[in-house]
Amino acid sequence: MSDLPQSVRINEEGPREGFQFEPGPIPTERKVALIDALSETGLTHIQTVSFVNPQRVPGMADAEAVAARFERKPGVLYSGLWLNEKGLERAIACGRLDLSGSISLTASEKFLERNQNRSLADNIAMQHNMIRLYQDHGIAVERGSIMAAFGCNFAGDIGVGTVVDMVEEIVDIAEEHEIVLEVISLADTMAWATPMSIKQVVGAVRERFPLLDIALHLHDTRGMGIANAYAGLEMGVGIFDSAVAGLGGCPFAAHRGAAGNVCTEDLVFMCEEMGIETGVDLEKLIEAARLAEDIVGHPLPGSVKMGGSLAALRR
Amino acid sequence: MSDLPQSVRINEEGPREGFQFEPGPIPTERKVALIDALSETGLTHIQTVSFVNPQRVPGMADAEAVAARFERKPGVLYSGLWLNEKGLERAIACGRLDLSGSISLTASEKFLERNQNRSLADNIAMQHNMIRLYQDHGIAVERGSIMAAFGCNFAGDIGVGTVVDMVEEIVDIAEEHEIVLEVISLADTMAWATPMSIKQVVGAVRERFPLLDIALHLHDTRGMGIANAYAGLEMGVGIFDSAVAGLGGCPFAAHRGAAGNVCTEDLVFMCEEMGIETGVDLEKLIEAARLAEDIVGHPLPGSVKMGGSLAALRR
Repeated sequence: MSDLPQSVRINEEGPREGFQFEPGPIPTERKVALIDALSETGLTHIQTVSFVNPQRVPGMADAEAVAARFERKPGVLYSGLWLNEKGLERAIACGRLDLSGSISLTASEKFLERNQNRSLADNIAMQHNMIRLYQDHGIAVERGSIMAAFGCNFAGDIGVGTVVDMVEEIVDIAEEHEIVLEVISLADTMAWATPMSIKQVVGAVRERFPLLDIALHLHDTRGMGIANAYAGLEMGVGIFDSAVAGLGGCPFAAHRGAAGNVCTEDLVFMCEEMGIETGVDLEKLIEAARLAEDIVGHPLPGSVKMGGSLAALRR
Repeated sequence: MSDLPQSVRINEEGPREGFQFEPGPIPTERKVALIDALSETGLTHIQTVSFVNPQRVPGMADAEAVAARFERKPGVLYSGLWLNEKGLERAIACGRLDLSGSISLTASEKFLERNQNRSLADNIAMQHNMIRLYQDHGIAVERGSIMAAFGCNFAGDIGVGTVVDMVEEIVDIAEEHEIVLEVISLADTMAWATPMSIKQVVGAVRERFPLLDIALHLHDTRGMGIANAYAGLEMGVGIFDSAVAGLGGCPFAAHRGAAGNVCTEDLVFMCEEMGIETGVDLEKLIEAARLAEDIVGHPLPGSVKMGGSLAALRR
């Protein structure tokens, strides 16, 4: 009936997703406090900051300061995000992050133009430049990613074939540089996916590229995030991006709502209740979610931080 | 891979669920306005009020006044809820509702004691009395229901076998009165279900009682509502209770959070996007959800009313 994995790897993106989206300003030390709290939960991957244009994303103007101050806990990978060479150079210069490269395309050229102000051809050319930079700095490239893989507010529905072709494009780019990718990340950037389309797209990509692990990056703007994660789990997906308390949202996606990424503690709750190991202490994660809410100063969408876990009720 | 139904029937419970839960007071005419707005959406079943003790549930003290004033639209069934003989007598006396009987047991005796202040044996005895009352008044009994079928804040996990036994108990009660039930409703009253337990319980009930249609009543307190609905759809479940904007919550369930039923417009969005017919006009339903939010005077949890449908974006 399904192919649920025994365990999942969660990439916590709340600090990066949230603080680039929130109007703020949020003091640097509070951003650091959230990262430090997340480090104590058992999460092994935390995306901390993005190195983007501070004029476009003022909430990330202190990226270097945040990266300089959080406490590195052994066993945890601390990543950052960048969209171009300049961002990568800043990430390398800060010297405190675990850097890995990815080859990133966008299934909707219209969104690419709005989000990064470049064409698909420009973007492919840029991926080659980025790979050379990664290789010059000894940074491994293990991951491909496709934004807007399930639909786009500006281009509409995205066909399954478009996504599969784009994975092929990414694999081809990788091969030109003698890179064997391990993971392909499919992002539902503008929350168009349903559990059905998750299964269709994941199934098609897996059929064509059986050796690639599939990761899902899910936004919850239309309330489908956890259901889409479940559909992914049923297809054997074992890697998920998520954000504590449901922090975040894409500043360029023209959403009326504020819903961000699928919520980490809700995802952990679902997985653990279904016997899928996450390695995360849900109670500590709920505390971190409440801290996130306190930091941004308004309610955040996650449910389990309000409804509570079942562990205390079972005792 | 799955057994998705072609269409689903949605029982809209927002007015009843919401107005019994909200601290209010909410003017009667605003409750009526929401019911009238819902009547225009294509929904065919609207639960309007509950006839419960106004000292325990003050928000429903005006049940008769609400029932007297909303406009009945042809093709829509307007139901009410009661928990005992006195409530049923009030529902009959008001003369404006479409009454149907159900045989209702609770999988957790501890919750039954808290919620209705009676033992399981008392409750079974009462079901016989209620059926006699239904039959005296020519009210059809077509539905059985089990509260707390997936877990209980006071009794903990509920075994699959307990639920199957309880369905059998309900079927036996029905047979004693020469009633053939059509629907068994499984309620996740305190939001313990996961997609996995939905599949396990629905599968076990369907295997033992293949002729009964299964309905799901899902609460979203831990963010699993839509995922649980999807799991139900995959098991072929075609009847769902839900609440516009996610109104409601059980006043006796001791939840810290305020999340109520699974949100109707999010459920309609998911179904329609997956090609499952609901008969509901999503845009009108989103308007009704915003009206509900305006009426209660605080944000309600539904997502699609904020994120918007995809129809306008596709145009």
